[in-house]
Amino acid sequence: MADVARTGERIAFLRRLRAVRQFRAEPVPPAVVDDVLTAARWSGSAKNRQPWELVLVRDRETLRALAAADGSAGHLAGAALGIVVVMAGDPSQNEQETFDEGRLSERIMLAAAAHGVGSCVGWFRGPGRAAVKQLLRIPPERLVRTAISLGYPDTGARPARPPRSLRSPARKPLSEMVHQDVYGGT
Amino acid sequence: MADVARTGERIAFLRRLRAVRQFRAEPVPPAVVDDVLTAARWSGSAKNRQPWELVLVRDRETLRALAAADGSAGHLAGAALGIVVVMAGDPSQNEQETFDEGRLSERIMLAAAAHGVGSCVGWFRGPGRAAVKQLLRIPPERLVRTAISLGYPDTGARPARPPRSLRSPARKPLSEMVHQDVYGGT
Repeated sequence: MADVARTGERIAFLRRLRAVRQFRAEPVPPAVVDDVLTAARWSGSAKNRQPWELVLVRDRETLRALAAADGSAGHLAGAALGIVVVMAGDPSQNEQETFDEGRLSERIMLAAAAHGVGSCVGWFRGPGRAAVKQLLRIPPERLVRTAISLGYPDTGARPARPPRSLRSPARKPLSEMVHQDVYGGT
Repeated sequence: MADVARTGERIAFLRRLRAVRQFRAEPVPPAVVDDVLTAARWSGSAKNRQPWELVLVRDRETLRALAAADGSAGHLAGAALGIVVVMAGDPSQNEQETFDEGRLSERIMLAAAAHGVGSCVGWFRGPGRAAVKQLLRIPPERLVRTAISLGYPDTGARPARPPRSLRSPARKPLSEMVHQDVYGGT
């Protein structure tokens, strides 16, 4: 039987995760990065393929170049650390790799949050993907779709434009999300 | 500064998550299901679209029918609860929805694990997807790709066939996964 207080703490921890897009300048300590990588390493994947590699980017000019690539990864410009997710890029496993990349990203964000470090998933689109591969010397056959910004939250920062998640209701109620037994069942 | 013990507990919690495919018969209590749904509800998604609905299935015959659908969801047959993930199915957002579905699934597994409940992602393929939609009366325009089995782990059970994850090295070392600054960088 799991300890009630510990269980409650874990659920609250999961519930509280939010994307952070504004960061303070201070670096993410190596011990924190190690924990994030450990959580990433133990991510589950289909048939345990582990179809991923990570490129850690701390150089400010490189982060700015990543942020400028086509897509929605502008928050990388101010991140203390960027983790570029490099997927195997097997065309026959594309759907599964995309799903597994989501699982991996969620764990990276949670491991960072366990240390009070904020994070946000950035998305590369169209020519942005090839540009990132060229910038980081990633082999062309790999697939680069996302990078995760990490850093201590700058709670005093005012976003230039409120993210959509702050302009719309935070989350749908469970009554609009959950069905019992069959679709439409209550 | 986050509390060191609490941080360590969270990282260990993330690190320990493993797929569970064999379950005891006892049901998952409503309070546990509520926590799982709360964690699911607060999942992040691109532009906060929340492109998901969940169908909770407890009926044994329905679970067996889901397990028999084309794909790799056989473990649903013995699950105490199956959560069928129904995605919006917007073709223009397919890649993003797949990624977000992975994030959602990871959180469901973690929230279950916080209560000592095991889980495994099952995958529907080809005609299995339409079969599941028909079985659960899910509108045809939606996308059904996965279902998650939940239940208390049957630690005494011997899998009919060891999953691949038990036949191959558990996880690659970080040295094969992590690059510094650029791909290939150490």
